Amino acid sequence: MTEIEQRRRSLSERLTELKVDALLVSSPANVRYLTGYAGSNGLLLLTKTEAHFFTDPRYAIEASEKISCKVHIEKKALLIGASAVIKRKRLKKIGFESSWLRFEDYSKLKEELTLGVVLHPIGRVIEEQRMVKSPSEIALIRRSVITNSAAYEKTIRRVHAGAREMDIAAELDYQMRALGAEKAAFETIVASGTRTALPHAHPTAHRLGENELLLIDMGACQEGYASDMTRVAHTGTPSKRILKIYKAVLEAQLASVASVKAGVTTGEVDAAARNVLKRHELDRAFVHSTGHGLGLEIHEPPRIARKDKTMLRAGMAITIEPGAYIDGVGGIRIEDTVLVTENGCEMLTQTPKDFTEI
Amino acid sequence: MTEIEQRRRSLSERLTELKVDALLVSSPANVRYLTGYAGSNGLLLLTKTEAHFFTDPRYAIEASEKISCKVHIEKKALLIGASAVIKRKRLKKIGFESSWLRFEDYSKLKEELTLGVVLHPIGRVIEEQRMVKSPSEIALIRRSVITNSAAYEKTIRRVHAGAREMDIAAELDYQMRALGAEKAAFETIVASGTRTALPHAHPTAHRLGENELLLIDMGACQEGYASDMTRVAHTGTPSKRILKIYKAVLEAQLASVASVKAGVTTGEVDAAARNVLKRHELDRAFVHSTGHGLGLEIHEPPRIARKDKTMLRAGMAITIEPGAYIDGVGGIRIEDTVLVTENGCEMLTQTPKDFTEI
Repeated sequence: MTEIEQRRRSLSERLTELKVDALLVSSPANVRYLTGYAGSNGLLLLTKTEAHFFTDPRYAIEASEKISCKVHIEKKALLIGASAVIKRKRLKKIGFESSWLRFEDYSKLKEELTLGVVLHPIGRVIEEQRMVKSPSEIALIRRSVITNSAAYEKTIRRVHAGAREMDIAAELDYQMRALGAEKAAFETIVASGTRTALPHAHPTAHRLGENELLLIDMGACQEGYASDMTRVAHTGTPSKRILKIYKAVLEAQLASVASVKAGVTTGEVDAAARNVLKRHELDRAFVHSTGHGLGLEIHEPPRIARKDKTMLRAGMAITIEPGAYIDGVGGIRIEDTVLVTENGCEMLTQTPKDFTEI
Repeated sequence: MTEIEQRRRSLSERLTELKVDALLVSSPANVRYLTGYAGSNGLLLLTKTEAHFFTDPRYAIEASEKISCKVHIEKKALLIGASAVIKRKRLKKIGFESSWLRFEDYSKLKEELTLGVVLHPIGRVIEEQRMVKSPSEIALIRRSVITNSAAYEKTIRRVHAGAREMDIAAELDYQMRALGAEKAAFETIVASGTRTALPHAHPTAHRLGENELLLIDMGACQEGYASDMTRVAHTGTPSKRILKIYKAVLEAQLASVASVKAGVTTGEVDAAARNVLKRHELDRAFVHSTGHGLGLEIHEPPRIARKDKTMLRAGMAITIEPGAYIDGVGGIRIEDTVLVTENGCEMLTQTPKDFTEI
């Protein structure tokens, strides 16, 4: 039995506890996790004993070669195909991904099904199964992290004052691809000067100045798996104020990483960063949460957020990324991808956290 | 009044006809269309007289500078913020985007609102408004098309047998970025040899052989607007069979382009391509629809599909992309972006449709 088949079996075994006869899986990441299908139009209907996969004719060849389910090639909407199987098999209670399914598709599905068939929202059950990564998944994340760091290092030493944010971003993405990534895991953030105070700045034609901050937030997507890293650099000499913020954020990041361990809650890991920033009177400048899980998606459970009660478990891959942003001055964020272990964590990101001088 | 404010006014004026007091807009493309916000977490509540925009603290600076709505910065879920405004303004019938809103968010919203407030699905009303492009949008699509073609032309003359699909894709994406695109509008498809028979092939480490087909499907996303083009090339001499398929698909594509005109239905444009392929006994090898609208999204209404009754209107930007795919042999697709006019169409894509020899 392959790993993918084992994942489906683990989930099938939970159907009784979830009080459903079948699960309709429509989130692309969950479909990929449970079938290996990496395209844009796939749907899985999982019963206690069977797995039915639906896609359209564009993917007919790939699906029949690679997917170990009963493959249905649908010319109409995939949900119509799934409804036909539900009716034929006389399934009565169907779990659906309420955090993914659009209201319109829910309504269509309901109309399509016989009266008496119950649609039962299951929330993020599969995402929960995905939180703890298998050795093969960890190997892929590790590879993605290495690609990410290598692309950063190859690029940063060629960056100089006068370079445009958008060209730096294009180079980073190109290097990730050259190193084997399919694509960037998200739109690479390259911000310079006071634009670093925008935590999610789109790269612009702005040119890096002579005495400026540079913030780069990037991730690779390799064989479907994400990595995520943020580093800051500067041209010339940073101001005392910026330097102070940098040191505080680094201290917060290290404290937060040090707090990671199986059995600790994500809220505690968030607090470890937030408390340091509070001591430096920067807690109000930290306008986002401390991190997130990653894997087949760049953001997936758990959230490393204030008061969150999720318990860390060995095998979770998460980011630790506190930051502080001051309008008109600039922003600092330092982010690594780490793997939770029984006794702490393994730092996957190997790129040094120096305040790189360009 | 700016163009964006005019768009909001046009929509506000339709609220009575839509039988709602307000619209809750959550699709990122629609939010961007109606506010200019290009980030990943924005929500718009549009009443007959007001526009409320919700985002999180990461976007506080950008939003306050750039968005001509009442801006609400929310630490909790944006829907909670919108619910508070709905309650305060005593709005009773709220239209929501049923083709976008997740079932879970719909349920949360319903719970949050006072009994008696009605949530009314409005489907793709805003997408319909977006179908006909304004002169400024057409200018952006035109620019995106030019970038796309230039990146293709710069890359294709450097491609040779032995190049890996993934490296060709990385180079195409890099060139688009270097020419001003933010990113590829979708994952660039580069397929070689019999892999061209997979209409949506992911680029792999497969190396282009000595006597092989090469299919490239790519689009730029520039200032938010998409372009889309497919071209085929070959190394060595193509087989007679491939050449025959190529000629049939080209004939189908030209016939379909020639049929485009305001007042014609999208189904007729689809049939123009399909009938040619039928004459060449390739209609069963044409496993997708003929095209789609594009703009802020790479796929948006109208669909150029079999029996579709949508009437083309001047100002629509659409793709025309028939193809034929034969397992074990190969696939040909030829795709342009065109602009519908009163008397026909303007061909935006200027890249020649030769069967390029490499």
